[in-house]
Amino acid sequence: MGTTLAQLAELVDGTVFGDPTRKITGANIIRDAVAGEITLMDKPDQVGMLMENCQASAVLVREHSDKLNIDGIVVANVHEAFGKVIRFFQPWEQKQSNGIHRAAIVSLAALVDPTATIGAGSVISDGVTIGRNTIIHSGVHIQAGCQIGDDVVIFPNAVLYDRTEVGDRCIIHASATLGAYGFGYDSSSGKHSLSAQLGNVVLESDVEIGAGTTIDRGTYGSTVIGEGTKIDNQVQVGHNCKIGKHNLLCSQVGIAGSATTGDYVVMAGQVGVRDHVHIGTGAMLGAKAGVSADIPEGQQTVGIPAGPFKEIMAEHMAIKRLPDMRKTIKALAKRIEQLEQEAEAMAEPAIRKAS
Amino acid sequence: MGTTLAQLAELVDGTVFGDPTRKITGANIIRDAVAGEITLMDKPDQVGMLMENCQASAVLVREHSDKLNIDGIVVANVHEAFGKVIRFFQPWEQKQSNGIHRAAIVSLAALVDPTATIGAGSVISDGVTIGRNTIIHSGVHIQAGCQIGDDVVIFPNAVLYDRTEVGDRCIIHASATLGAYGFGYDSSSGKHSLSAQLGNVVLESDVEIGAGTTIDRGTYGSTVIGEGTKIDNQVQVGHNCKIGKHNLLCSQVGIAGSATTGDYVVMAGQVGVRDHVHIGTGAMLGAKAGVSADIPEGQQTVGIPAGPFKEIMAEHMAIKRLPDMRKTIKALAKRIEQLEQEAEAMAEPAIRKAS
Amino acid sequence: MGTTLAQLAELVDGTVFGDPTRKITGANIIRDAVAGEITLMDKPDQVGMLMENCQASAVLVREHSDKLNIDGIVVANVHEAFGKVIRFFQPWEQKQSNGIHRAAIVSLAALVDPTATIGAGSVISDGVTIGRNTIIHSGVHIQAGCQIGDDVVIFPNAVLYDRTEVGDRCIIHASATLGAYGFGYDSSSGKHSLSAQLGNVVLESDVEIGAGTTIDRGTYGSTVIGEGTKIDNQVQVGHNCKIGKHNLLCSQVGIAGSATTGDYVVMAGQVGVRDHVHIGTGAMLGAKAGVSADIPEGQQTVGIPAGPFKEIMAEHMAIKRLPDMRKTIKALAKRIEQLEQEAEAMAEPAIRKAS
Repeated sequence: MGTTLAQLAELVDGTVFGDPTRKITGANIIRDAVAGEITLMDKPDQVGMLMENCQASAVLVREHSDKLNIDGIVVANVHEAFGKVIRFFQPWEQKQSNGIHRAAIVSLAALVDPTATIGAGSVISDGVTIGRNTIIHSGVHIQAGCQIGDDVVIFPNAVLYDRTEVGDRCIIHASATLGAYGFGYDSSSGKHSLSAQLGNVVLESDVEIGAGTTIDRGTYGSTVIGEGTKIDNQVQVGHNCKIGKHNLLCSQVGIAGSATTGDYVVMAGQVGVRDHVHIGTGAMLGAKAGVSADIPEGQQTVGIPAGPFKEIMAEHMAIKRLPDMRKTIKALAKRIEQLEQEAEAMAEPAIRKAS
Repeated sequence: MGTTLAQLAELVDGTVFGDPTRKITGANIIRDAVAGEITLMDKPDQVGMLMENCQASAVLVREHSDKLNIDGIVVANVHEAFGKVIRFFQPWEQKQSNGIHRAAIVSLAALVDPTATIGAGSVISDGVTIGRNTIIHSGVHIQAGCQIGDDVVIFPNAVLYDRTEVGDRCIIHASATLGAYGFGYDSSSGKHSLSAQLGNVVLESDVEIGAGTTIDRGTYGSTVIGEGTKIDNQVQVGHNCKIGKHNLLCSQVGIAGSATTGDYVVMAGQVGVRDHVHIGTGAMLGAKAGVSADIPEGQQTVGIPAGPFKEIMAEHMAIKRLPDMRKTIKALAKRIEQLEQEAEAMAEPAIRKAS
Repeated sequence: MGTTLAQLAELVDGTVFGDPTRKITGANIIRDAVAGEITLMDKPDQVGMLMENCQASAVLVREHSDKLNIDGIVVANVHEAFGKVIRFFQPWEQKQSNGIHRAAIVSLAALVDPTATIGAGSVISDGVTIGRNTIIHSGVHIQAGCQIGDDVVIFPNAVLYDRTEVGDRCIIHASATLGAYGFGYDSSSGKHSLSAQLGNVVLESDVEIGAGTTIDRGTYGSTVIGEGTKIDNQVQVGHNCKIGKHNLLCSQVGIAGSATTGDYVVMAGQVGVRDHVHIGTGAMLGAKAGVSADIPEGQQTVGIPAGPFKEIMAEHMAIKRLPDMRKTIKALAKRIEQLEQEAEAMAEPAIRKAS
C-alpha cells in the first residue's frame, strides 16, 4: 500500500515542497518513523531531531524553512492534517452500525433512542434510558434505572450499577465500574457490617472515565463528578465524593469517601487523598502526594505527608545536606574540645597559685 | 412524585412532629438535601448544620428537640428508617428473577441450585457448583470446578479462574478477578519462565471483594482470604498470601506473594506490603505505608519505609525542624569562632612574652 | 479420592522410599499440607521445617537423606513431578474445545485460524486475524483490525481496542485493557480537549499482561511492550511508552506517557515513573520509588523522589539519627555557653584593671 506526496497534499488541502511523486507508505511520529513514512513537525525546534535522528521520507509542517532538507507538505493545522493521513493508512477502524445488535440483551422496559447503538453482548436493564447518537460498545452492563445522555460513548465491559446518571458527551472506557458499594462498615460487633448502599453515581456532562477506574455509589446521596472533569485509568473515587468541574485526575489516584474538590484541580499520578478533606479550586497535587488535610485554593502541594511545594522542597534539600551537617557538627565539637583544653590550660596556673 | 410526612411516618413506623400534611418529594443527606426533601440526623451535634446550612423540609431523628425548628419524624432506628424512605423514592432497583437467564451459558456439567440466579451473558463452566439463593449478575465468567456457596452475590463482569472457592454470603464486585496467574518467574536463562500456576483462590465466608480487585492463585496451594475480611476496590493480593479473619484492606493496597496477616488487621489506602512478611493481629497500617519487614501484633505502622507510628512521627517533626537546626548550627559556629579569637587574643601576650 | 505412594511414583517416574502402600489423598506445599497429603522439598534446608512443622504424610525430593523421617519419592525434577501430582488430584481443569463457541460473535470479515479457540460471548470484529492454537477465553472483546499471533492465550473479559497487535505466545489476563485513549488534553480554552487517539498498542512476542492492567494507545504511533517483558496485575502504561525487552513490571506500577525503558529493567510494586523519562537497561527500581528523571543503566534506585540506593539509604540513616543529632547540638551549645562564661570571667579582671 502506498501513495504519493501529491495525493496526500490533496487529501489534507496542503502545498507540496520537494518531489510531489515521492512514494509514501505510512505515517508516524518523529521518534518512530522509518524510511518511506511521512511524519509531522509541530514545533520549530524539532528541526534538528528531524534532520539527524529520523528516517522519515517526508514531513507535514506549518511553514517551510530552508533548514528542512526533506520533502513535505505545508498545511494550516498539522495535527488535523496528520490525523487525516494516519486514518488514510489505517486498514481498519472500529465501526458501529446504528441500532441494537442482535446479540444485545435489551429490556423491554428500557428506552433506547433510535439513533443510539448497542453492541453485541451488552445488557440493558429495566428503566434505562439511552440518548441520541450514544454508542454502547459490546459487553457493557447497564443496570436498572440508569440514565445515559446524548453523544455518550461507553467502551466494552464497562459496568454501570443501578441508577447511575451519565451526562451528555461523556466517554467511559473499558472495564470502568460506576456505582459499586462504598467501603463503609459498622465494626462495633467484632464483625464488619456493610453500611447503606442506597445512593448512586452522577457524571455531569463532558466527563471522561479511564479504563479500570472505579467510582463508588453514595451511601444515601450521590457521588458526583463535575462537568468537564477528566479521569485517567485505574483511579478510585470513594463514596459520596464531590469532584468539581474541569479537574484532571491522573492514573492510579485514590480519593477516599466524602472528599470534595473545587474546580480545575489537578492530581498527578498515584496521589492519595484522605476521606472528608477538601481540595481547593486550582490546587495542584504532585505525583504520589499523600493528602490528609484540606488544601487551600491554588496551592501546589507535594510530599507524604503533603505540604506546600516550597516547604517540602526545603525539607528535601535539608535532608540531602544531612551528611554534611553531621560533619559540620563533628568539626564544631572538635573545636569546642580544643577551646576547653586551652581554657583548662589557662586556668591551671591560677589554680596552682590558689593551691 | 411526592407524598406527605404522615404517609412516610406510617411507612417507617414513626411519630410526626410539626405539620403531617407537609409534602415530601425526595430524600437526601444533610449536605445535599434541597427544599422538599427529607433528611436524617444521626448525631445530636448535627443540629447546627441542619438548621443553618440545609434546605431540607423535614428530618428523621431519634429524639425530638426544641432546637429543631423543622418538621420531622421520630423513629427508633434512623438509618433503617431512612433506607426505607430512600427506597420509596427510587423509581428503579436492579431486580433479578430466580433462575437461569435465556442468554446465560451454563455447562450441563455444572450444578446450579434451583433458587440461584444466573444473569444474561454469564458463562458457567464444567464442574461448577452454585449454592442456594446465590445471585450471579450478567457477564460473570466462572471457570471449571469453581465452588460457590449460599447467598453469594457476584456483580457483572467478575472473573473466577478455575477451581476458585467462594464461601457463603460473600460479595464480589464488578470486574474483580480471582485466580489469575501469580507473578513468579525463573529468570536463570536470560528469559523469564513462568512458574507453576496449579493452586487456586479460596474466599472463606462473609468476604467482600471490591470492583477491579485482583487476587492471584497459589503456585501449588491456595491463596486464602479469611472469614469476614473486607477488601476495597483495586486491591492486589499476590500468590500464596494468607489473609486472616476480619481484615479491612482499603483501596489500592498491594500485598506481594506469600505475605500473611493475622486477624483484624487494617490497611489504609495505597499501602504496599513486601512478599513473605507477616502482619500481626490487630496491626494498623497507615495510608501509603511501605512495609518491608514483619509487623508485631497491634502495632500502628506508618511511613516509607514503614516504622512504628511514634518513631516515624518523631522523625517527621525532626525533619520539619531541620531549617531551624541549620540556623542553630551556624550560630554556634559563630560563637565558637568568637571564642577562638578571644582565646587567641589572650594567648598573644604570653606568646609575645615568650618570644 | 486417594491413591498409593507406589502409584504416584509410577505417575512421576520416581523411586519410592519408605512404605509404598501409604494412602495419599492430596498434594500441597509444606506450609499448608495436612495429614494424608504429599508435599515437595526443593531445597535441602527445608528438612527442619518439614520434620517439625508439617503434617504431610509423604514428600517429593531430589535426593533421599537420613534426616527425612517420612515416606516419599525421589525424582529428577521435583517441580515437574509435583505439577503432575497436583493435576492428578484436581477434579476439574478449564478445558477449551477447539473452534468457535456457538455463543461467540465473530465477524465474517475476521480471519480465525481453524486450530484457534473462541469462547462463549467473545466478540471478534472486522479485520481481526487470530493465529494458530491461540485460545480466546469467554467474554473477550477484540475490536476491528487487531492482529493476534500464534499460541496466544487471552483470559475472560480482556478488551483489545482497534488495531492492537499481539505477538506469538503472549498471555493476557482477565479484564486487562489494551488500547484505551491516552490521557492527553489541550486545556488552552479553559476546557480540556482530548488529543488525537490514532495510534495503537503493540505487544511483541512472549509478553505477559496481568489482570486489570491498562496500556494506552499511542497518540499517532504505537505504545510498544518489548519481547519477553512480563507485566503484573493493575499496572498502567501511558500512551507512546516504549518498554524494552525482558522487563519485569510488578503490580500497581504506573508509567506516564512517552517514558521509555531499556532491556531487563525491573520495577517493584507501586513504582511511579514520570512522563518522557528513560530508565536504562538493567536498572532496578525499588518498591514505591517515584522516578522523575532519567535513570542510568544498571542503577539500583529507590525513594521518593528517587535516587541511587546508597545515597537514599544514607539519607534514611541520617534521618533516623536526627533525634540524637538534636541532643548533640544542645550539648554543644551548653559547652559553648560554659566556655563563654569562663572567657567572660577571665576577661573581667582585665576589664576591671582597665576601668
